[in-house]
Amino acid sequence: MPPRRFAFGRTEDAIHPDTMRAALAEFLATAIFVFAAEGSVLSLGKMYKDTSTATGLLVVAVAHALALLAAVAVSYNISGGHVNPAVTFGALIGGRVSFVRAVYYWVAQLLGAIVASLLLRAATGGMRPLGFSLGPGVGEWHALLLEVVMTFGLVYTVYATAIDPKRGHMGTIAPLAIGFVLGANILTGGPFDGASMNPARAFGPALVGWRWNHHWVYWLGPFIGAGLAGLIYEFLIIPAEAPMAHQPLAPEDY
Amino acid sequence: MPPRRFAFGRTEDAIHPDTMRAALAEFLATAIFVFAAEGSVLSLGKMYKDTSTATGLLVVAVAHALALLAAVAVSYNISGGHVNPAVTFGALIGGRVSFVRAVYYWVAQLLGAIVASLLLRAATGGMRPLGFSLGPGVGEWHALLLEVVMTFGLVYTVYATAIDPKRGHMGTIAPLAIGFVLGANILTGGPFDGASMNPARAFGPALVGWRWNHHWVYWLGPFIGAGLAGLIYEFLIIPAEAPMAHQPLAPEDY
Amino acid sequence: MPPRRFAFGRTEDAIHPDTMRAALAEFLATAIFVFAAEGSVLSLGKMYKDTSTATGLLVVAVAHALALLAAVAVSYNISGGHVNPAVTFGALIGGRVSFVRAVYYWVAQLLGAIVASLLLRAATGGMRPLGFSLGPGVGEWHALLLEVVMTFGLVYTVYATAIDPKRGHMGTIAPLAIGFVLGANILTGGPFDGASMNPARAFGPALVGWRWNHHWVYWLGPFIGAGLAGLIYEFLIIPAEAPMAHQPLAPEDY
Amino acid sequence: MPPRRFAFGRTEDAIHPDTMRAALAEFLATAIFVFAAEGSVLSLGKMYKDTSTATGLLVVAVAHALALLAAVAVSYNISGGHVNPAVTFGALIGGRVSFVRAVYYWVAQLLGAIVASLLLRAATGGMRPLGFSLGPGVGEWHALLLEVVMTFGLVYTVYATAIDPKRGHMGTIAPLAIGFVLGANILTGGPFDGASMNPARAFGPALVGWRWNHHWVYWLGPFIGAGLAGLIYEFLIIPAEAPMAHQPLAPEDY
Repeated sequence: MPPRRFAFGRTEDAIHPDTMRAALAEFLATAIFVFAAEGSVLSLGKMYKDTSTATGLLVVAVAHALALLAAVAVSYNISGGHVNPAVTFGALIGGRVSFVRAVYYWVAQLLGAIVASLLLRAATGGMRPLGFSLGPGVGEWHALLLEVVMTFGLVYTVYATAIDPKRGHMGTIAPLAIGFVLGANILTGGPFDGASMNPARAFGPALVGWRWNHHWVYWLGPFIGAGLAGLIYEFLIIPAEAPMAHQPLAPEDY
Repeated sequence: MPPRRFAFGRTEDAIHPDTMRAALAEFLATAIFVFAAEGSVLSLGKMYKDTSTATGLLVVAVAHALALLAAVAVSYNISGGHVNPAVTFGALIGGRVSFVRAVYYWVAQLLGAIVASLLLRAATGGMRPLGFSLGPGVGEWHALLLEVVMTFGLVYTVYATAIDPKRGHMGTIAPLAIGFVLGANILTGGPFDGASMNPARAFGPALVGWRWNHHWVYWLGPFIGAGLAGLIYEFLIIPAEAPMAHQPLAPEDY
Repeated sequence: MPPRRFAFGRTEDAIHPDTMRAALAEFLATAIFVFAAEGSVLSLGKMYKDTSTATGLLVVAVAHALALLAAVAVSYNISGGHVNPAVTFGALIGGRVSFVRAVYYWVAQLLGAIVASLLLRAATGGMRPLGFSLGPGVGEWHALLLEVVMTFGLVYTVYATAIDPKRGHMGTIAPLAIGFVLGANILTGGPFDGASMNPARAFGPALVGWRWNHHWVYWLGPFIGAGLAGLIYEFLIIPAEAPMAHQPLAPEDY
Repeated sequence: MPPRRFAFGRTEDAIHPDTMRAALAEFLATAIFVFAAEGSVLSLGKMYKDTSTATGLLVVAVAHALALLAAVAVSYNISGGHVNPAVTFGALIGGRVSFVRAVYYWVAQLLGAIVASLLLRAATGGMRPLGFSLGPGVGEWHALLLEVVMTFGLVYTVYATAIDPKRGHMGTIAPLAIGFVLGANILTGGPFDGASMNPARAFGPALVGWRWNHHWVYWLGPFIGAGLAGLIYEFLIIPAEAPMAHQPLAPEDY
């Protein structure tokens, strides 16, 4: 088993211009994502009173999927395309990012979500962001489990397509896989708890709209799911033996 | 015609750590897929009584397409991205996977679907998974034919974009082609028999929701379709003559 | 200007096994496409009497886009991914395929569409395929112009992403661009004339459902549009001067 | 910091055949885009009186996303895939295109949008294009801010995936990221101001349909947003230090 590489685990990270550049990329990408994601919810509210229809669910899921896809694509080469504090936490747990760099990313992601929410409020003439809430009859522990499982799927996808050093050609379509698994999970979890999987996505609108009901669920759930995905992918999937005669062929070859 | 390669047909497969790792990847990818796929059906049920509308069909088809896309992408480099016992059967028929490895995959895929269904039941506060059933007025033999034809299309797509050694750049977008042909087929077959094309996708919710009506259709149909696709692709499409003067140019060159 | 290459313009084409293999690939890919494309129309008919709603339009457009994407991807490396007699005609006009090969493709594509329509009729318990018809108040000449313009866009996309020798990385996503421009055009032309852009797509269901109203529109329009696209791309876009000092940089470099 | 390259900033641009070829590619790609984009709006109008529903929003957003994706893909290798005067302006501000070339592109893009609108009017039997207008209760300054923010996201995506010399594999999926961020933004901004982000997209239908209310918003907003994106990406994101020992690893390597 080769030694894992803590690629960004250097103390100079905090003052290195490239760390700042990566944080700027995370800030802008998260703002682009949250603007369209939360914006699609307000957009439905502009047209209807009742937004909890199957069509509304589809609109919101598609907006999230497409916007995250673009946000990951634009930051992939600069910061690794996290756009999500839970993803950064998963990368930290797996040793793929230093703690200093993770803190920079978290601050940038939260600021991006806040600025996007403020811009949305201004551009819509003062509409109050909605953020996330629990569906009728859904308990906090059910929502927590839902966020854990869905974020596990999201961060596992990030690991397999954007972090794994052997990701190969899957890296080219990583933004699609990541954006689309988010969209699929929203189609599942939307009516239950809104399906956040991203504390920054939840925090920005909560702050600007000042709605804090059950807010802890949207932090704890994603962090547990992301941590589990990081641990499992890093310690069970990535490790490979040294090359040997009967090592399976890479998919490229078989 | 070059000799076909039975890349995984070695007896050491059963105890080799990479076989276990591939089975784990199949388990997790199938769980991610089934969670969002069956979850989208429950999600509609959370909002409506009647889920058989065109919008509901679109929601379910999009959820399946996007979730399978991600599931194939995350397991592509580790296990080949089967996520479906019928795909594994097609690969077995074509000699692309050993029988031992196929058994490991089948167990992993079924377990993944069961775990996903259990997690769904827990996270939704006890909703009983629906799985698949025949639409009004649809006979078992019609459904069987539908599953055969649709699975043929799915597994033919897997062969052409993920298994064919000459797939070239199509390998990069294999998860998209595979996920999207599933989505297109669901838009066709959904109102008739639910459009499974995947025995694990059908089995997990059937077990956890304990609904077994017509269940054999969802095993036999996909296996026949997958076997046909494997045979046709392997023995009619892949074989190429030795290079000769007037061999057609590869698409890259013409 | 370098000499254009008539890559497949050899008389041996007719008896060469690779021509047969390419024709088989066109047959199967067209069948996969038409099954899901026409199937999505019957699927709506299974649920509703009135299928001309915005949701129905979206279902049909998405089914066509995703199915064509997969059909192009599975045949791209074997036959060039035409799946459409108009595309083959455009390639013929531009000198990218020999007449003999074009005839093989046309027969294969039409047979694929017929077989798919027959399988659909059988699997749905005898539903009569609908094919294409003109919307209320739409004249044949308007429909013809619509087919010309939409097919021009489709075949221009095929040329730019799948045929142009300088297509570079765009070749990797060619099936997506081709499938998605079809979907976009259906969202435009659907309520007017169904938006076929593909004589095989129109012919198979017309034959099996025996509906021939205005059928000529769905042959002449696509062939005119495809021919124009082939001529314009081949003679105005592709030609490049010999390398010179101030030749523009390839996009990869600028 | 390496010197930035003004790749197309040569005076010969105006008479060089490749400039004409690029302008032709922009003309055709913009026509393909506007035909399907504005066409999807008329298509809804053909079926309904009231097009401002969530389903209508989804139809229009999907049509725009898919059509722009194809339009960028077909012109990417010839002209850089702008298809939008605001994108060309952003590239001009960042020094990525010469002024002379920008003027050629602008003329080509506007002509493409006009021709597409005329063809639409003819093919629909005289339907008057709708173009963009403000939703009920939406002020011009709110719409202006919305266009600024949304176009910033669009042009930032163009820079990161299609212009940045270090875009790497993201260049392969650039058309997807660009088309999809447009779609996501339309799901947000559609009910407020139509969500144009593209002066040519707004101008063609406005001219042919002769509707000029608030038209300046759809020029000024996109140009401000595009200029900001060009400045920020070019001067804050792209600059990198000379290679040094602790330069972060490229995503390919970490």
